[in-house]
Amino acid sequence: MSIATQRDLAAYCREAACRAKVAAAELATIRGEQKNAWLRLSADRLRDQAATVLEANAADIGAAPSFGLTEAQIDRLLLNGKRIEEIATGLEQVEALPDPVGEIIESSVRPNGLEVLKTRVPLGVVLFIYESRPNVTADAAAICLKSGNAVILRGGKEAAHSSAAIVEILKEAAAESGLPADAIHLVDTTDRAAVGHFLALPEYIDVAIPRGGESLIRRVAAEARMPVIKHFTGNCHVYVDAAADLAMAERITVNAKCQRMGVCNACESLLVHAAVADTFLPRIGALLTERGIEMRADERSRPRLMSPGVMPATDEDYAAEFLGPIISIKVVNSLDDAIEHINRFGSKHTDAIVTRDLAAAREFAARVDSSAVMINASTRFNDGYQFGLGAEIGISTDKFHARGPCGLKELTTYKYVVLGDGHIME
Amino acid sequence: MSIATQRDLAAYCREAACRAKVAAAELATIRGEQKNAWLRLSADRLRDQAATVLEANAADIGAAPSFGLTEAQIDRLLLNGKRIEEIATGLEQVEALPDPVGEIIESSVRPNGLEVLKTRVPLGVVLFIYESRPNVTADAAAICLKSGNAVILRGGKEAAHSSAAIVEILKEAAAESGLPADAIHLVDTTDRAAVGHFLALPEYIDVAIPRGGESLIRRVAAEARMPVIKHFTGNCHVYVDAAADLAMAERITVNAKCQRMGVCNACESLLVHAAVADTFLPRIGALLTERGIEMRADERSRPRLMSPGVMPATDEDYAAEFLGPIISIKVVNSLDDAIEHINRFGSKHTDAIVTRDLAAAREFAARVDSSAVMINASTRFNDGYQFGLGAEIGISTDKFHARGPCGLKELTTYKYVVLGDGHIME
Repeated sequence: MSIATQRDLAAYCREAACRAKVAAAELATIRGEQKNAWLRLSADRLRDQAATVLEANAADIGAAPSFGLTEAQIDRLLLNGKRIEEIATGLEQVEALPDPVGEIIESSVRPNGLEVLKTRVPLGVVLFIYESRPNVTADAAAICLKSGNAVILRGGKEAAHSSAAIVEILKEAAAESGLPADAIHLVDTTDRAAVGHFLALPEYIDVAIPRGGESLIRRVAAEARMPVIKHFTGNCHVYVDAAADLAMAERITVNAKCQRMGVCNACESLLVHAAVADTFLPRIGALLTERGIEMRADERSRPRLMSPGVMPATDEDYAAEFLGPIISIKVVNSLDDAIEHINRFGSKHTDAIVTRDLAAAREFAARVDSSAVMINASTRFNDGYQFGLGAEIGISTDKFHARGPCGLKELTTYKYVVLGDGHIME
Repeated sequence: MSIATQRDLAAYCREAACRAKVAAAELATIRGEQKNAWLRLSADRLRDQAATVLEANAADIGAAPSFGLTEAQIDRLLLNGKRIEEIATGLEQVEALPDPVGEIIESSVRPNGLEVLKTRVPLGVVLFIYESRPNVTADAAAICLKSGNAVILRGGKEAAHSSAAIVEILKEAAAESGLPADAIHLVDTTDRAAVGHFLALPEYIDVAIPRGGESLIRRVAAEARMPVIKHFTGNCHVYVDAAADLAMAERITVNAKCQRMGVCNACESLLVHAAVADTFLPRIGALLTERGIEMRADERSRPRLMSPGVMPATDEDYAAEFLGPIISIKVVNSLDDAIEHINRFGSKHTDAIVTRDLAAAREFAARVDSSAVMINASTRFNDGYQFGLGAEIGISTDKFHARGPCGLKELTTYKYVVLGDGHIME
């Protein structure tokens, strides 16, 4: 699509958002079985039309070098038969989740006989702004529609052809399943200004969810006139307490740091209680060195890590989300110091304590101000699937509305339905 | 307090907010019995020191004419022995409510044995911006602290002396009960710019709650860099369905419109199905005329209301929150038309249907996009006390985070506490 002027672009965005709002009203009352039929049909069609999707993907891959993508980024962009099967299975997994809409969250009969039902309803229209992986297109549409919301998808230009092919399949299946055609809208202009236009439409769009680099999220948070669910950085900590099982602490630290490094719930910083520093640091230093992890450590840690070339850690290092083979390390004098350090340098995402001391575990859980606190478990478990929410559209580092993994329920709100038989206020 | 320059004012706001944030961290883990002791002691002290509060109130009442307050406004500002007793009782009622902090909202044991607990925690620091009634000062502090939040209170200048006297009592009681002194901060400058400075501090303030006129709320929503819980207008409807019990419809309409007119959940607009218009409109016209209510009605209603001088209703009338003895009236052809009218002109606050038809009731409840939908009950019941939430800090017309009456729970969020015994991600 070509949009000639900014005025046309504004009109395009306004019309798309307005249509989504109308579709959302319809979608809010549609039966669960229809949404499930759409998900099944979409999965089937995706398998049937895999060739078309792969062809579109080939166009994206062909253009990728011109966007300056790295090899790792190109790999994330690449589709093949196995990955398309995974996308289809993902849709079927969302189908299998219970429909959140209409759930009665709380209810009471008041002394005057009035029945008060707090019932779950969709938010309305979700504006989802994300980066290049084409599977996210299908995941996000599935989660939004299953929770009764219409969605405006604004994907990365690198995946434009793949996303368009996937959305065409999803929209055709929607029409055949009786879902409103405007329930899914893929923004088919790569003009960066489109995002700004959408963010100025709180009358149509109920929530904006940016998923991508920090600058994108900051831009959306600054410009949005509707609420935003932010998926900010994950500067996650493992704290090895004085009362830690040190073998467990090794396993958890290595897993949290090394199992997958480019993700938001990977460990970026290790805090070690002074009482176990002499024993623990040489062991973890050897394990991390073996795995090619660069360590940046404070003065007390450095000699104990027994690894040549460990650089001093700066405050920037303690605040950093490395998303790669680097870790910051610090010795702390107390549980208190560990909690203070985490609340100061962390990103309110996921922080773990390894301890056998119940009081320390309780204190850490109560005072660390993060979406998830892990006790004797790897930070990597902060994830919608691991928590049993099913699919997730992101991990919120906000406190307002939704915190941690955002699945179907987190894309809903509630309304009160009150039943009387002529009740009037005395 | 006198603050010489804007730079001083910004520093004053920053310091107050920073101290509140530190207090909030402490308050989040304080025991419920301490918060309750504070509420009891505050109630006792308020009764003991009633004379001091009344003296401060006399200063506000004396200054009221210079602020151009109406008689009704001055009456709302006035304290006396009975009203101070009501404030004290209000504190004791909050004491009696269950402590929301630490509640396990959901929990599961995952197949791998990981225990996932979703636990309720405070939001942090609440900035509460409100108008002149001094009782709101005590209510808001009680609700915020009981839910584990620190509060920055920015009241109207008209009640400055009364609020200061009340807050001094609450702060003294806090210190004696072991609550952090900075948990309550009354903004003691009347400089309007202070609000702007506070709204620019998302690093310290977790939510802003404006309660007052529309222009205040719009200003806060536009300037706030943290989330806002808006308590916007209440343009509430009563829809009299074709299948209504007309005697019930009369009682509910009269109650919703007349029982108390200056409140957000009062009825401002009456919709009547064409099938019952001939019977119902003359009757309700007479009842409303008796009570001195001005009617503004469409062409089909006007002749049927049998009242001389009914003016034509404009779209502005249908969108208006009159907060007084005026009502807009319209005949609709169908349930569908009623729902569409409400979703177009309403304010997503409270809307009622009167009907004996189950299908109509279900349809209305599902499709009217308001915080509360009343079936055969007066709109006046959308209220924290009536819904059993206990005290409320406002009625949210937002969908995000909290909708409808905001009590203790609505001022909380959650965190995940995850218990493992060395769990690592495979």
